[in-house]
Amino acid sequence: MTRIGILTSGGDCPGLNAVIRGAVLKGSAVYGQDFVGFLGGWRGLVNGDIIPLDRSRVRGLSNQGGTILGTSRVGPYQEPDGGAKNIQKTLDALGVDGVIAIGGEGTASASKRLFEDGIKIAGVPKTIDNDLDATDYTFGFDTAVEIATEAIDRLRTTGNSHDRCMVLEVMGRHAGWIALHSGIAGGAHAILIPEQPESIDQICAWAVSVRDRGRSPMVVVAEGFTLPDMSEAHSTKGLDGFDRPRLGGIGERLAPMIESRTGIETRSTVLGHIQRGGVPTAFDRVLATRLGMAVVDLVADGGWGKMVALHGTDIARVGFDEALANHKTVPKERYQEMRVIFG
Amino acid sequence: MTRIGILTSGGDCPGLNAVIRGAVLKGSAVYGQDFVGFLGGWRGLVNGDIIPLDRSRVRGLSNQGGTILGTSRVGPYQEPDGGAKNIQKTLDALGVDGVIAIGGEGTASASKRLFEDGIKIAGVPKTIDNDLDATDYTFGFDTAVEIATEAIDRLRTTGNSHDRCMVLEVMGRHAGWIALHSGIAGGAHAILIPEQPESIDQICAWAVSVRDRGRSPMVVVAEGFTLPDMSEAHSTKGLDGFDRPRLGGIGERLAPMIESRTGIETRSTVLGHIQRGGVPTAFDRVLATRLGMAVVDLVADGGWGKMVALHGTDIARVGFDEALANHKTVPKERYQEMRVIFG
Amino acid sequence: MTRIGILTSGGDCPGLNAVIRGAVLKGSAVYGQDFVGFLGGWRGLVNGDIIPLDRSRVRGLSNQGGTILGTSRVGPYQEPDGGAKNIQKTLDALGVDGVIAIGGEGTASASKRLFEDGIKIAGVPKTIDNDLDATDYTFGFDTAVEIATEAIDRLRTTGNSHDRCMVLEVMGRHAGWIALHSGIAGGAHAILIPEQPESIDQICAWAVSVRDRGRSPMVVVAEGFTLPDMSEAHSTKGLDGFDRPRLGGIGERLAPMIESRTGIETRSTVLGHIQRGGVPTAFDRVLATRLGMAVVDLVADGGWGKMVALHGTDIARVGFDEALANHKTVPKERYQEMRVIFG
Amino acid sequence: MTRIGILTSGGDCPGLNAVIRGAVLKGSAVYGQDFVGFLGGWRGLVNGDIIPLDRSRVRGLSNQGGTILGTSRVGPYQEPDGGAKNIQKTLDALGVDGVIAIGGEGTASASKRLFEDGIKIAGVPKTIDNDLDATDYTFGFDTAVEIATEAIDRLRTTGNSHDRCMVLEVMGRHAGWIALHSGIAGGAHAILIPEQPESIDQICAWAVSVRDRGRSPMVVVAEGFTLPDMSEAHSTKGLDGFDRPRLGGIGERLAPMIESRTGIETRSTVLGHIQRGGVPTAFDRVLATRLGMAVVDLVADGGWGKMVALHGTDIARVGFDEALANHKTVPKERYQEMRVIFG
Repeated sequence: MTRIGILTSGGDCPGLNAVIRGAVLKGSAVYGQDFVGFLGGWRGLVNGDIIPLDRSRVRGLSNQGGTILGTSRVGPYQEPDGGAKNIQKTLDALGVDGVIAIGGEGTASASKRLFEDGIKIAGVPKTIDNDLDATDYTFGFDTAVEIATEAIDRLRTTGNSHDRCMVLEVMGRHAGWIALHSGIAGGAHAILIPEQPESIDQICAWAVSVRDRGRSPMVVVAEGFTLPDMSEAHSTKGLDGFDRPRLGGIGERLAPMIESRTGIETRSTVLGHIQRGGVPTAFDRVLATRLGMAVVDLVADGGWGKMVALHGTDIARVGFDEALANHKTVPKERYQEMRVIFG
Repeated sequence: MTRIGILTSGGDCPGLNAVIRGAVLKGSAVYGQDFVGFLGGWRGLVNGDIIPLDRSRVRGLSNQGGTILGTSRVGPYQEPDGGAKNIQKTLDALGVDGVIAIGGEGTASASKRLFEDGIKIAGVPKTIDNDLDATDYTFGFDTAVEIATEAIDRLRTTGNSHDRCMVLEVMGRHAGWIALHSGIAGGAHAILIPEQPESIDQICAWAVSVRDRGRSPMVVVAEGFTLPDMSEAHSTKGLDGFDRPRLGGIGERLAPMIESRTGIETRSTVLGHIQRGGVPTAFDRVLATRLGMAVVDLVADGGWGKMVALHGTDIARVGFDEALANHKTVPKERYQEMRVIFG
Repeated sequence: MTRIGILTSGGDCPGLNAVIRGAVLKGSAVYGQDFVGFLGGWRGLVNGDIIPLDRSRVRGLSNQGGTILGTSRVGPYQEPDGGAKNIQKTLDALGVDGVIAIGGEGTASASKRLFEDGIKIAGVPKTIDNDLDATDYTFGFDTAVEIATEAIDRLRTTGNSHDRCMVLEVMGRHAGWIALHSGIAGGAHAILIPEQPESIDQICAWAVSVRDRGRSPMVVVAEGFTLPDMSEAHSTKGLDGFDRPRLGGIGERLAPMIESRTGIETRSTVLGHIQRGGVPTAFDRVLATRLGMAVVDLVADGGWGKMVALHGTDIARVGFDEALANHKTVPKERYQEMRVIFG
Repeated sequence: MTRIGILTSGGDCPGLNAVIRGAVLKGSAVYGQDFVGFLGGWRGLVNGDIIPLDRSRVRGLSNQGGTILGTSRVGPYQEPDGGAKNIQKTLDALGVDGVIAIGGEGTASASKRLFEDGIKIAGVPKTIDNDLDATDYTFGFDTAVEIATEAIDRLRTTGNSHDRCMVLEVMGRHAGWIALHSGIAGGAHAILIPEQPESIDQICAWAVSVRDRGRSPMVVVAEGFTLPDMSEAHSTKGLDGFDRPRLGGIGERLAPMIESRTGIETRSTVLGHIQRGGVPTAFDRVLATRLGMAVVDLVADGGWGKMVALHGTDIARVGFDEALANHKTVPKERYQEMRVIFG
């Protein structure tokens, strides 16, 4: 019997538990695989800190946010006593034949190195930001977009009641997918993403155009968006005459800039961690379950060194190399097609 | 200036309004197109019953269920005074250059015939059942799956509290996509779809296996599922000794069969029209908006006789012929991969 | 140390777990009480079938639907080996000093008899129908109303798209509270409840009046509503000339009657068990938690023979007698104030 | 025929539109009253800026957040050309007999003064914070609590996955009702409200106790909570040695204090404006509709100078004086009963 260890790594993401459940249910039923879970991400793998994972342990997990295995942001080579040699020893001691690592770009990168160093490891891609090129969508993204969209729906009624401009800051440090999709879904009048520069003049022009049509501007901004000249946004002179860094994110910086330039009362909201937790959408549960089931097929086929991915409606297999080759950012044309209707 | 008429046809579907909004916003901003809406599906086209559609009319529609244009199930050749000739006269009288028809298989089929009869017409695919082969997903489907999944989440707690088997009947006359996806998302113990026969003995075996593990069976059944021998389900003898047809859908018929054969108390629920209405999910709003924007691109390119579709993450164009060539049912392998973990 | 046994009885209801959690957390922290749970309602009490309930066991229960103790509809005198004598023996053998019974009218009635027969028992009222006179609201009711209201919101968009009359049947066998509140919240054009007769002519008049204003009628009907002359609704002649009972609930019977009399296409939906399960609303979680905490205060004060209840914003104590004195139905004036704006 | 003007004043609040709808539907159907709406709060009243309000105008408003009349925070005596004399002239010119003002404490206070100055005015209480003593609950509060509770549910899964302490800041400048109720509903381990001091040592002790039981601390803090010694929270020394004010709310200040004292990684989230907008809960829709209907009864009875309120399950009438006599804060005993189970 093959014994497989599963770990979850990186930031929390709705659907992690559904992946674990899908893998354990199919692996045990179809391939007779046996499963353990490493606790706390790579730390559990390095230290051999495990729990058994059988059918009863993954019961009811498809709609549970978070991960029953815990997670952390430290990599397998950064952990004390980390590295491939030690990990192989741990695996041998535990009788674990191979590892399934569920995580984002950092996890894929570490998995690639471990695989090259001889560890049998396979991957499931996970990023709430949807910025992995190897897969059409990552689980967790749809939930984050849904939560952000519901927030926009709520903020718009308040914007309209008060004739205010509302600014919502959503996740997306390097890729603006959450902002783009929630902004489209919520009918935002401006969407600002890290990939595409917009000047404060343009943003204000959109807001004014909306106000002039008798409506209340709704601006969605990804946390990684920067203004071309951010000196205004980044710093401010204190009463003592010293420049000091403005605290807070881009949303909190944009709001007073829009207000002072347009005269439209403006309020900002930062969604933050709410986007990462809780019950996954049905879309994410299905995707996560399918990926979990597919990765045990991969492992049963001896496909170590690869990860599973969504291509169209099919689950595909891609090498860690390929998965890491490109960062999936919002293409200019996807942004431009929305941009023409802003304002 | 090009003047385009939009109509929505067939059953209600979350996202119809978002398509209309996307088309009008982009068409007017980018191509200077002018829009009218035909009321009540094909009837409005045949009778020239229109409302103007400008930017202010589609304001705030992205999150509104239903269709502001109304819909019906009668085709353009079935309507009194229907047919291509009369329709062309109506279009001429209204100064409408071409038609965008948003609808399902029947609508695509009628559009194809109208196009062959000389009407400039383009299409946007719509089916809550997701059974159109030309597109990876249709808008409305994700919302239906989300609603069905939330119902499963609720029913499971009651099943567990009462040690009952719960049966949920969802939409899907010819294709089991809603049952499959909601069943996966909700962690059902049996999913029954029109495409794949299962015997009542097998269904009961799954239920007993769940009960024997101390859990409460959750069965999701598409309305179009039939038992190989449905005589038991379809009819029953009355007190007068005459056979009479059992009323109600498959869910209501299955529940007493499971209960009497397994001894597990069983209750059924029929979701019905709730799956078709109300606020669309963010996924459906994005897809619908993109399709609406893409169909005005198509029309601006003179691409009459085609419809827009989702391929992977891209919007593609397909001929009506191609769109109608195949009915997209659940492939056997998609069903089998879940079936092995039922029970 | 006092040892207390908790049981949940009757139909499932969102908030049962929150009551259990509130009782255990406060009872153990403040009074040093020790808790066990009887499994499967009264059956567990009669048979001494228990699980320990400590702080770790009730962890995370506030938002969990259903009851971890299970429930059933059989009373303590109906169970084999039931009755006060046997129950007292069981309690003595388990070292349990007294019982907290969470349930509805039947449970309160049985608790009263057990208390008169010498059992130390206290109660927490539970009915999804909100028909207990002793308390302003029962937990579970708010969740049921919320679910029914969301269904109305969804059905209305479909009614409007198709110019249809939509009929929604909600719970309420003897009291129309769920229909009344969800109907108000959803803006229904007719609300039909068991307490107040309305003729089919009146119902159709409302539907026609709505249609004549260009809208689509929304009818909410409690399952216990009956037409003054139900012969039309209750039976139908078969092809063989014999009268036979119409299957299905009042919603399914009303729809064709409205359709045939008004010519308005009419569809019905039965919400069913979905109203009873799943995540409770915040209101119900707060109410349930407060009741759970209050009942251990009651027990610590030796207040056996009583139950806790909500009066305004305060938790009060009432005798089982008082709790059972009146069935809380919708008062005529509450119904009339809505009735004047129907149609 | 009596002509009544309605205005909404102060911060946005889910249910405002349902009050307007309830008043217009009942007032026109039962009393033959005629309605207009003043736009932008008191400003519309001062300037005579009105829209007609008839049945068709309030159609479908029960589930719409915000207010179709707009709102502002400026009072009738602060507006240019404000004051009772001018307002009476405006009312006379418009043929408006009396005013219904929907608003919070400031609105009630201004209404009282206007009434004493001769204006026929009646009120409907509105505060999302639920801090009006005259009524058991205000509409909007339940929606805010529901939204905050859903946020807690989401944050808890992430807290558990990362072994983090999560801090959620909710609304409540002077009263901690939203924090108390959402904290109870979400199972928070510490709830911090303006009315009750807690030291940072106590807060950290609770967090450590939770961590030591293997769980992740969840802290809910009302925006108006202050630490007894807030110097640490309020200021910080910059790199230049100067003390400078810490920006951000109490949640953002508490998180690093908890983290540095306990060693538990801590993250904060500020819910902000999301609590004020969007679709109201069914509870709020029912309450708002009932208040709207009751205030036209009040007006029909000539009960100017009063407002309507919820007492238990009944709608009552209270004078503006009485309504303003006390600020409803969380009573010590309500807080203490939860406090004993914190940690």
